[in-house]
Amino acid sequence: MGAAQSFRELCDRTKNTNVRLSLPAVCIVWQTAMIILFGVFIRYNEESDTHWVEYRKENNLSDIQNDFYFRYPSFQDVHVMIFVGFGFLMTFLQRYSFGAVGFNFLIAAFGLQWALLMQGWFHSLDYTDGKIKIGVENLINADFCVAGCLIAYGAVLGKVSPVQLLVLTLFGITLFAVEEYIILDLIHAKDAGGSMVIHTFGGYYGLSISWMLYRPNLDQSNRLQSSVYHSDVFAMIGTLFLWMFWPSFNSAITDHGDGQHRAAINTYLALASTVLTTVAVSSLFQKHGKLDMVHIQNSTLAGGVAVGTAAEFMLMPYGSLIVGFCCGIISTLGYIFLTPFMEKYLKIQDTCGIHNLHAMPGVIGGIVGAITAAAATESVYGAEGLRNTFDFEGEFADRSTSKQGGHQAAGLCVAICFGVGGGILVGFILRLPIWGDPADDNCFNDEPYWEMPYILRIFPAEIQQYKSIQTYKIFI
Amino acid sequence: MGAAQSFRELCDRTKNTNVRLSLPAVCIVWQTAMIILFGVFIRYNEESDTHWVEYRKENNLSDIQNDFYFRYPSFQDVHVMIFVGFGFLMTFLQRYSFGAVGFNFLIAAFGLQWALLMQGWFHSLDYTDGKIKIGVENLINADFCVAGCLIAYGAVLGKVSPVQLLVLTLFGITLFAVEEYIILDLIHAKDAGGSMVIHTFGGYYGLSISWMLYRPNLDQSNRLQSSVYHSDVFAMIGTLFLWMFWPSFNSAITDHGDGQHRAAINTYLALASTVLTTVAVSSLFQKHGKLDMVHIQNSTLAGGVAVGTAAEFMLMPYGSLIVGFCCGIISTLGYIFLTPFMEKYLKIQDTCGIHNLHAMPGVIGGIVGAITAAAATESVYGAEGLRNTFDFEGEFADRSTSKQGGHQAAGLCVAICFGVGGGILVGFILRLPIWGDPADDNCFNDEPYWEMPYILRIFPAEIQQYKSIQTYKIFI
Amino acid sequence: MGAAQSFRELCDRTKNTNVRLSLPAVCIVWQTAMIILFGVFIRYNEESDTHWVEYRKENNLSDIQNDFYFRYPSFQDVHVMIFVGFGFLMTFLQRYSFGAVGFNFLIAAFGLQWALLMQGWFHSLDYTDGKIKIGVENLINADFCVAGCLIAYGAVLGKVSPVQLLVLTLFGITLFAVEEYIILDLIHAKDAGGSMVIHTFGGYYGLSISWMLYRPNLDQSNRLQSSVYHSDVFAMIGTLFLWMFWPSFNSAITDHGDGQHRAAINTYLALASTVLTTVAVSSLFQKHGKLDMVHIQNSTLAGGVAVGTAAEFMLMPYGSLIVGFCCGIISTLGYIFLTPFMEKYLKIQDTCGIHNLHAMPGVIGGIVGAITAAAATESVYGAEGLRNTFDFEGEFADRSTSKQGGHQAAGLCVAICFGVGGGILVGFILRLPIWGDPADDNCFNDEPYWEMPYILRIFPAEIQQYKSIQTYKIFI
Repeated sequence: MGAAQSFRELCDRTKNTNVRLSLPAVCIVWQTAMIILFGVFIRYNEESDTHWVEYRKENNLSDIQNDFYFRYPSFQDVHVMIFVGFGFLMTFLQRYSFGAVGFNFLIAAFGLQWALLMQGWFHSLDYTDGKIKIGVENLINADFCVAGCLIAYGAVLGKVSPVQLLVLTLFGITLFAVEEYIILDLIHAKDAGGSMVIHTFGGYYGLSISWMLYRPNLDQSNRLQSSVYHSDVFAMIGTLFLWMFWPSFNSAITDHGDGQHRAAINTYLALASTVLTTVAVSSLFQKHGKLDMVHIQNSTLAGGVAVGTAAEFMLMPYGSLIVGFCCGIISTLGYIFLTPFMEKYLKIQDTCGIHNLHAMPGVIGGIVGAITAAAATESVYGAEGLRNTFDFEGEFADRSTSKQGGHQAAGLCVAICFGVGGGILVGFILRLPIWGDPADDNCFNDEPYWEMPYILRIFPAEIQQYKSIQTYKIFI
Repeated sequence: MGAAQSFRELCDRTKNTNVRLSLPAVCIVWQTAMIILFGVFIRYNEESDTHWVEYRKENNLSDIQNDFYFRYPSFQDVHVMIFVGFGFLMTFLQRYSFGAVGFNFLIAAFGLQWALLMQGWFHSLDYTDGKIKIGVENLINADFCVAGCLIAYGAVLGKVSPVQLLVLTLFGITLFAVEEYIILDLIHAKDAGGSMVIHTFGGYYGLSISWMLYRPNLDQSNRLQSSVYHSDVFAMIGTLFLWMFWPSFNSAITDHGDGQHRAAINTYLALASTVLTTVAVSSLFQKHGKLDMVHIQNSTLAGGVAVGTAAEFMLMPYGSLIVGFCCGIISTLGYIFLTPFMEKYLKIQDTCGIHNLHAMPGVIGGIVGAITAAAATESVYGAEGLRNTFDFEGEFADRSTSKQGGHQAAGLCVAICFGVGGGILVGFILRLPIWGDPADDNCFNDEPYWEMPYILRIFPAEIQQYKSIQTYKIFI
Repeated sequence: MGAAQSFRELCDRTKNTNVRLSLPAVCIVWQTAMIILFGVFIRYNEESDTHWVEYRKENNLSDIQNDFYFRYPSFQDVHVMIFVGFGFLMTFLQRYSFGAVGFNFLIAAFGLQWALLMQGWFHSLDYTDGKIKIGVENLINADFCVAGCLIAYGAVLGKVSPVQLLVLTLFGITLFAVEEYIILDLIHAKDAGGSMVIHTFGGYYGLSISWMLYRPNLDQSNRLQSSVYHSDVFAMIGTLFLWMFWPSFNSAITDHGDGQHRAAINTYLALASTVLTTVAVSSLFQKHGKLDMVHIQNSTLAGGVAVGTAAEFMLMPYGSLIVGFCCGIISTLGYIFLTPFMEKYLKIQDTCGIHNLHAMPGVIGGIVGAITAAAATESVYGAEGLRNTFDFEGEFADRSTSKQGGHQAAGLCVAICFGVGGGILVGFILRLPIWGDPADDNCFNDEPYWEMPYILRIFPAEIQQYKSIQTYKIFI
């Protein structure tokens, strides 16, 4: 215990948030590494290469059958979710909007490059020439991979430095690619919208890191850990773009044709249902029945998370509504009861409540997926439909749906293990006293990392002249 | 008169805005009803079902010919208009942004479910098994249906409780589905962008409700019925997303191929034209030629409304510009002269000016549609083109274009009647003193229904220490 | 010199910002002219006309092969960039958000109409009947054309009247269409994303105008030439929508199939790389390593500009990363060193720093394009791929890639010449003292052109009653 304590003391020395050397160094070195690795490994695939015209003729295809036209609109929607959705969702704090949207931007831009490599090695490696061949589906998957890390960012929002976030992202992407390979390829679980692979993993990864970085004196930053009126409106931009484009998220990499179509419908319905139960619970547990913006901003999205795994299955429209119904309730109750409990007793400080928005709904999504898969029958799906939907081909041709259900459950366990284990490991690294994170009384504050324009001039209305302006500093 | 007066007095008792029982109850009960009805009635259609692979082969189709790829990008644009467009357009009030974007979210999420059922029974019922079969086109239509109710919300913004809004939506969707069935199916009028079906109906529905809910002492809330600088900027987010995606709105459910293509072009042009005339009139009627944000936020959209019915017709690019030209002028003049007149003499308090943005331009759109249809000739459209555009098939195979023009006009009348009649009926219901609406001196205020984060800390710039902070409440 | 000086004095007379006559007059007259010219010249093309159904059958096409489905999703993304992207990017000033987003709206709405005509005469004129036939590709090109003028607006932001902006746009579109015709048709250079045609031209056009309109006493408006916290967050909305949709911008009018696919991938990668080097340089040159929002808002986009010309070429993924890497560094250094230098020594006051975001990266993009074209080989592209990519057809069938490289460089020179020459000419016109521009001490201020809602009520928190409210004017 002596060693652990001295390590802790080492970490708690007076904080120095100057990242003038570390941040530029990490950005330049890592970006240079990306260029070299891309030079060695990454090429266009047959649909984005100039040889497409020959490929197309050989396979008797029309230009419109290029995968680009199947997936690009969904890709752009996902892209908006990653940068505007996640970025603005986190602007709710009164004085951390620059960090929310700016660091989200930074780590997503790095993460997608590293994800193209990591996922490429596992999924898109052309063994004839050792190159990763990329097309629009790889871009979507890279954005997905990044989403896992942005979820984790939500747990530590306002308490870490940008360098720590880049480290969190580097390891997060790496872990993601490995767990994804195990779950989707080895276990052959299906996870269209990533309830397990993205949300469960990302959620527990972030919570474990937050647990490792527990700050007993965080109440010293209490004055800043709340919203102002307009920061809540900004956050609603994030909420709505996530909510609206979630059908694209869950359908982006599903099967051409009915697969994408059905995944979009299921997600659309689940999300609609979630809004009503979120409002109900939020109003029910507040004095005078007033709604809490935190719930509206976050819990309304839980249905999209929970329907992720089963989105492509024949979940049925009413099934989607049921999933959304439950998740709205559970997620809002989580914000009311579980988040304070976790902070007080489990020492997990979860700034954005990702446990309620991603981790729990992700687990529910995994379970729903397992049950729906196990219950799938040829009479509902049709023989060919069943084979297509679950990819019962090649070595998996003989798998039964009940066995598939078990494998789905196994996939969920892998996601949780990678999240918790990886988070503890990375949290340990992030405790090193070299990363420039803020002191306990200076969290949730843009000031340490951003040039701040915070002076407003206020003067009494009766005085029309500019001369008598009183200058105030104002937190807005 | 005695009964009417005592009813009025009953309604004007001291207001109690506590919705802690009613709001959760309505949300939970109605959402449960949706689940049951969806379970009984709603299934995937042949393009979103796993049997698509068989259907596709039988009909010799490619996956890309699934309706999903024709309409999903437009659907997502429409979805953004409904949630971000309408939601943020209404954030302009200084202290009602939560209600604007939050209640818009709530009623749209409920409305689209109810719309899938109501429209499904009328349009998508498969008589072989009594099920409604849904695909992406149904989702678009559900969003359209919701738009009518969100328009109505604009008239009563800030003066009603969320429970009233849900009631408004329940009846609004129901009325919408019936009038739409009468106009599109029985009368066989065409209304691609819903000038009549959506905007005229929604506009008069909202105005009639507002008339029924007239508050003679609303000036007690005057201090809050205005914008602040940043709330006007937030509203521009709504304006722009509506303006940009309106071509998708008007083309979303038009014919594959040239129909969608032409509708998008016509709308794009009409909207561009509207912006210039709006700016012209706004500047002309203001002292010093200053522009008024209310006009820029709203009247610039009138051209999109007015070109809705005729968007798919051969309106011609210059025709679209003319429609936009006129609507920019009329709508802006409406804000300057008509809105104050209606409030003073007709006792219609129209918070967002939906009469100028939806009702009037909708009527103009209906008239433009009737004229354009009546003037359509085979020499311009081509024989097959004319048949396709106006769906002169089946029982309507022999209809002439001049007769079609008359039927378009009849459709417009139906929309107005349903709007006015339905609004009076629903307004009567909403006057009951049980809904938790705010008192006359507490309108346009988020405080009754939302937990408010309104404390900012302001302190003189010379004093660098946090100790001497003076705390102010500030309306932002 | 005497004449020049007296001209200068004439221009510097006391400013009158009343545009009550000029603005409505210009809007109404120009819009009327548009209607007449559209009536004479503009018709639907064969893909948006009702005769499509016959055309389709003759050419054995499916509806999904209508160009609408290849380009409409990209068009909508470009449309968002023009109106929300450019508009909100310029809202960063504390008190010029209405002008930023409102005037951007106005001039884009006018410009796209004039662009349809100007570009139509050069590119889409049907010589059989003397009509311009338009479809979705024309809408995209019109938006592109407008982008050039919006870039120029960035240089003069806050210092000109809306009438001046409309004049700037009228001439800008005209010049654009001519230089585009010379570069793309006569010189037969390729410029998919418009590095030369849009960004280089637009950048130098704006800088030259700003030079002609130099205000020696602009420091009198210093108090307003900065941001406040929330105006910086608004600007990030613009930044992110530009950043996310840039792949659509660069791929919108490239070849069907692999062309669009590859252009999107290259742009996606270049932009990701730019973010990291922008952050690195911004942090490195600031005390304490703090990031500057100006850099994050602007320089992160430079990679998208610079990869524009070569986006469709076989630039290779690592090539895109390298371009982005360099541009992030150069653009950020430009903001730190070049912008102050240009203002002090070259008398170019560049409000948004368009030299760093558009002009320089545009030139780099032109050079990258020339090099990539000159280095193209049949072994990389394939014989048919090379022909397709560079359109070596008709009179250009025998052109070699090295010659193409030279022609690309020639195109870049044309763009610079048109930008500088046109800007000086138009700047001269805009100096006339008739346009209603603001005085030197009233720049960067919405007050001269907008009705302003700027009164907030602030009162001490202890006092719960509304009676004791102190009213302040507050700049927010």
